[in-house]
Amino acid sequence: MKIGDKHYRSVWVADNGRTVEVLDQSKLPFVVDVLPLNSRDDVAKAIREMLIRGAPLIGAVGAYGVALAMTEDSSDEALQQAYDVLVETRPTAINLKWALDRIVGQLKHERPEDRVARAYAICAEIADEDVCISESIGEHGLDLIRAIALTKKQPGESVNILTHCNAGWLATVDWGTALAPIYKAHDAGIRVHIWVDETRPRNQGGLTAFELGSHGVPHTLIADNAGGHLMQHGQVDLCIVGTDRTTARGDVCNKIGTYLKALAAKANHVPFYVALPSPTIDWTAWDGVKEIPIEQRDEKEQSHVFGMGPEGRHTWVNTVPEGTVCGNYAFDVTPAELVTGLITERGICEASSEGLQKLFPEQYGEN
Amino acid sequence: MKIGDKHYRSVWVADNGRTVEVLDQSKLPFVVDVLPLNSRDDVAKAIREMLIRGAPLIGAVGAYGVALAMTEDSSDEALQQAYDVLVETRPTAINLKWALDRIVGQLKHERPEDRVARAYAICAEIADEDVCISESIGEHGLDLIRAIALTKKQPGESVNILTHCNAGWLATVDWGTALAPIYKAHDAGIRVHIWVDETRPRNQGGLTAFELGSHGVPHTLIADNAGGHLMQHGQVDLCIVGTDRTTARGDVCNKIGTYLKALAAKANHVPFYVALPSPTIDWTAWDGVKEIPIEQRDEKEQSHVFGMGPEGRHTWVNTVPEGTVCGNYAFDVTPAELVTGLITERGICEASSEGLQKLFPEQYGEN
Repeated sequence: MKIGDKHYRSVWVADNGRTVEVLDQSKLPFVVDVLPLNSRDDVAKAIREMLIRGAPLIGAVGAYGVALAMTEDSSDEALQQAYDVLVETRPTAINLKWALDRIVGQLKHERPEDRVARAYAICAEIADEDVCISESIGEHGLDLIRAIALTKKQPGESVNILTHCNAGWLATVDWGTALAPIYKAHDAGIRVHIWVDETRPRNQGGLTAFELGSHGVPHTLIADNAGGHLMQHGQVDLCIVGTDRTTARGDVCNKIGTYLKALAAKANHVPFYVALPSPTIDWTAWDGVKEIPIEQRDEKEQSHVFGMGPEGRHTWVNTVPEGTVCGNYAFDVTPAELVTGLITERGICEASSEGLQKLFPEQYGEN
Repeated sequence: MKIGDKHYRSVWVADNGRTVEVLDQSKLPFVVDVLPLNSRDDVAKAIREMLIRGAPLIGAVGAYGVALAMTEDSSDEALQQAYDVLVETRPTAINLKWALDRIVGQLKHERPEDRVARAYAICAEIADEDVCISESIGEHGLDLIRAIALTKKQPGESVNILTHCNAGWLATVDWGTALAPIYKAHDAGIRVHIWVDETRPRNQGGLTAFELGSHGVPHTLIADNAGGHLMQHGQVDLCIVGTDRTTARGDVCNKIGTYLKALAAKANHVPFYVALPSPTIDWTAWDGVKEIPIEQRDEKEQSHVFGMGPEGRHTWVNTVPEGTVCGNYAFDVTPAELVTGLITERGICEASSEGLQKLFPEQYGEN
């Protein structure tokens, strides 16, 4: 999507045809800084230190790590080593393993001298496919937004959409998941206004505000506490969030706090949609609350807040009394009953086993 | 309550018998600093600049502002002027007006030469009465906590209580409202563990963590987003929050985000109690969502976070991209249906007109 007048993806190959470039997300939303990755180890470091984030983006960049490894040494040993090093950088990232399996699996069958060119081609495929998936999600979600604009809004009125965390183009290769329908609607000339949840403790709402602001989409950043009040007062027409993992019955594991917004949406008759690329569906999981373990992260992420200090320098501040014990639960599970629908690259379905079966019959042995 | 080994109230008269002392809450939870107030204007400034906060505390300190005025000039004109200056420092604070009406109304009938001594005596009454109210709330709430400890917990297990914002002794003269039952339970030897909501955007959870830590009550500070997940997983036995305003049918207007926790409590069968001194009941209001206007505050309170910087200095950091529009809704309304009960100084009642009528029959012309 756009930053000012220029169109960006979140990963691309530099003009030299070799260097891989990404936006350094550790500096966002304050500074836009292009980070060149020139080696397998640059890629490993970028993933490990969370200079890039978002499951689909990590997958694509991880694959480019293999391509960069091949430019230095395209032997079988180097290929295997690239896999081993990169897959360890974020052991829980499903997309990373998937992308590495794919590129390494394919390169194994190539002659070493062909591997560099083939590797870059596979990476481009992976990136383009991700863009395709995101764009399809965007097109399907656009229909929802258009329907609200046509049936519930006067000319000149905005469709108010609430989102949580950052499920935008910075987390994918382009478009995003939850934000893709919003970009599509905005680009189609539909007036939208986005309520952006701050998303404590890691404040990913700042990334969403950065994305939307850079692309020119009107938005207001709010405390995570505010969404219920806004829904009570008719100021939210639609919620769209992303998901890290979706179960076969439609339970959704997403950033902590999603569940509270889903409860408020249900209580106030606000449609609550979850946008997802189908690879994030875990067909082996059923009851999300019971089956999905919730990661607890460093308590400093809760106690310490990062921002731009008065002298224009980035800094951390400790917001709690010295010695305070903090909890830091990364995700929560929203049961399918609270989800109006799932927006996938194949279309929109009910958040239920039956709904998913209609869109993904092959998972049910019907292909 | 205690800070270390020493018992504090949030306002007291210094050893010289004249100076009024408070804790400078603008420096909390980072630094404990006693702020001496030596004149009416010191008091006006402390209230206006939020060096003290909490409706009951503001009322008591406001009254002391009249007493300090009398030490300089105890004429009728000075008395009226003290009222006029102080009542303007926080026009929406019901307790402030109530306390000033009371002290000025009584002093009018005194001879000027008797006014100083009488003023300090009235202030002491106001403060003591507030402590009495808080202690009664604490005693009634203690019964709830004890019942959970006895019926649902094994020996050695803690009763887990979630609270939002700061409704502790720093907001009253002592004990607090929502925290009073917790202090009573802890002091009675019942094991409690408190989940402290951070309470964005103003982070009053830090004050609650400071209070609990100083008094020795085990607690964990969490993002406002986390409570739903904890309730889903049986990690919350009870919620207790305060309220700024309660309607005659039991709707509760409290810090933004309270409503989301009440929804989660209902969905997960967790009892949700609201602690309140009866003067905060607005007998003229019925439907809180429709009738109570919600204050919108400076957006900088949302975008900028205050804390202790790396060099040990307090500083603000901007957490959002330059130019981001922020919303800052201060309160929300929790409908009575979501409230298990109201804990008042007269006992616990159902959050309904019928429930309130039993405890406060005089409001229904039955006295």
